[in-house]
Amino acid sequence: MATVITSEHKARVTAWFDALRDRLIAAFETIEDVGGGAACARFERRPWQRPGGGGGTMAMLRGRVLEKAGVNVSQVAGVFSEAFRSQIPGAADDPRFWASGISVVVHPRSPLVPAAHMNTRMIVTTHGWFGGGADLTPVFADAEDTAAFHAALKAACDAHDPGYYPRFKAWCDEYFQLPHRNEARGVGGIFFDDLAGPDWDADFAFVRDVGTAFLNAYPRLIRRHMDKPWTEAQRQAQRRKRGRYVEFNLLYDRGTRFGLMTGGNPEAVLMSLPPEASWP
Amino acid sequence: MATVITSEHKARVTAWFDALRDRLIAAFETIEDVGGGAACARFERRPWQRPGGGGGTMAMLRGRVLEKAGVNVSQVAGVFSEAFRSQIPGAADDPRFWASGISVVVHPRSPLVPAAHMNTRMIVTTHGWFGGGADLTPVFADAEDTAAFHAALKAACDAHDPGYYPRFKAWCDEYFQLPHRNEARGVGGIFFDDLAGPDWDADFAFVRDVGTAFLNAYPRLIRRHMDKPWTEAQRQAQRRKRGRYVEFNLLYDRGTRFGLMTGGNPEAVLMSLPPEASWP
Repeated sequence: MATVITSEHKARVTAWFDALRDRLIAAFETIEDVGGGAACARFERRPWQRPGGGGGTMAMLRGRVLEKAGVNVSQVAGVFSEAFRSQIPGAADDPRFWASGISVVVHPRSPLVPAAHMNTRMIVTTHGWFGGGADLTPVFADAEDTAAFHAALKAACDAHDPGYYPRFKAWCDEYFQLPHRNEARGVGGIFFDDLAGPDWDADFAFVRDVGTAFLNAYPRLIRRHMDKPWTEAQRQAQRRKRGRYVEFNLLYDRGTRFGLMTGGNPEAVLMSLPPEASWP
Repeated sequence: MATVITSEHKARVTAWFDALRDRLIAAFETIEDVGGGAACARFERRPWQRPGGGGGTMAMLRGRVLEKAGVNVSQVAGVFSEAFRSQIPGAADDPRFWASGISVVVHPRSPLVPAAHMNTRMIVTTHGWFGGGADLTPVFADAEDTAAFHAALKAACDAHDPGYYPRFKAWCDEYFQLPHRNEARGVGGIFFDDLAGPDWDADFAFVRDVGTAFLNAYPRLIRRHMDKPWTEAQRQAQRRKRGRYVEFNLLYDRGTRFGLMTGGNPEAVLMSLPPEASWP
C-alpha cells in the first residue's frame, strides 16, 4: 500500500527542494564568478503568491556565462477544476490537491555549452506521488557530454532500481519529441511520473538523488566548454535551436500548458523560454 | 440555400488567391526597392506537395525593410481524421475536404513599422464557406495607423453588409487574445469564419475586397514609418513583443495547431513566426 502523506512528509519535501535550490544557485553563481571581477551576475529572487493558495519563489540570473538561468520553487494547494479531475490520479473523489516542486532551466550564452532542464515535484491528492526528470539540450551534440550526463542519471537510478534508468530514459525520449518536425528536443536524460512505491522514503531518496546527480553533472559540462571561443554562425545555430525549444514548450509541454491554463503565474511558467530565439 | 460548390467556383477562388499573392509580392518588393540599389531583396518561391493531396507555394522575403515576410498559397484536398470530423461543419457524413487559401505575415525590421497578418480561405466539405481576416500588431501602437487600418477594413465590410465590421472586429479582438497574460496580440482588425450566405458570388466578392483593402492599407503604414530612425531599446521592445506573438501562435492559434497536428508542412505553417524573438 502507498504511504499516507502527512504534513511532515510535505515539510520534508519542501525543505529539500529549498535546499537543492540554494545549492544550485550557489553552483551557478560560482560559475559566474570565474574571471568575473566586481560585476558578477547574481540570482534575483522574487516571491509570488497564487490567488488560489500557496505560491513560490522565482530566482533568475542573467549572467555572462549563463545568459538566462531560472530556479523556481513552489508549493501550491487548491482544488482541481471539473475539467482536470478525471485526468489526475485520485482527484475524481476529492478534487483538492497540494503540490511542491523545483524547476530549473539554464540557457547558456555560449552555443558550445548545452542548455539543461531539471524538475522534481511531489503531488498529493487522495494519492501522493513524485515526478520529474532532467534532460540536456545542446546546440551541437557532444558525445562525451551526453555520455557523462546520462551516466550521472543512470547511477542515481541504479542505486534504487535497475529498471529505472532504461524505463525513465525511454520515457524522456518519448516526451521531449517535436512530432511536427520529427526531431528530439535534445539528447535526452530521464523523465518519470506517478512514482508511488510501497516505501515513500525510498521514493523521496530517489528524487533527492536525481537532484544531486544533476547538481554534480551539469555544472561540469558548463565548465568544460564555457571558455571556448565561438562564432556568430554558431550563435545563429543556437538561436534556431532555441526556436525549437520554444516550439516544444508552447506546443507540447504539459507542465507549461497546465500551468497557463490553470491560472499559474505566467512569468514563472514561462521562465523556461530562452532569452533569444529565431525563426530565420 | 447555400450554393453547391463546383470545380468552377474552386478554380475562380484559387485564381484570385494566386493573383492577390502576386500583387502583394509586387507591393512588398517595391518597398524593398526604395533606395535599395542592386541588392534589393526578392521573394523566393518554394512549391511544396502535401502527402495526402494538393500542396502550395511558400514565398519568403528577407529584406532590408521587411525583415521576414511570407506569402503562402495552398490548395489541399483530403479526408479529415476521425478526431476532426465532429468539429468541422458538414464533415460528419462525408469526411472529404478541399481547401484553398492565402496567408500573409510580415515582420518588419524597424520596431516603428507594425507587423501584420492577413489570411483568407475557402473550405469545402459537404458545405462550403469562407473564412479569414486581417490584423495589425505594432510594437508601439500608433492611433493614426490603427484608425487607417480599421477604416480600410470597415469600408470593405460596409460595402457588403453594415453588420460585418462590428461583428468581425469583435471576433478579431476575442480571437487574438493571450488569456494567460490578459493581453491582446495587437490592435485588432477583422476575423470571420463560416461565411456561407445565400449568394456565393457576394461572399466571394467580400473576400476579394478584404484582400484588396489589406493590399491598399498595409503598405502605406510601412511607408509612413520605414525611414524613421529607431533605437536599440525600441528593437529590444520589438523582440519582446514578438515573443508574445510566438506565444499566441503556438499556444492558441487554431490554424497553427490544426496545421501541425494534421501533418501540414511545418515550414509553411510556422512561416508566421518572427525572425527574432526574446524572453529576457
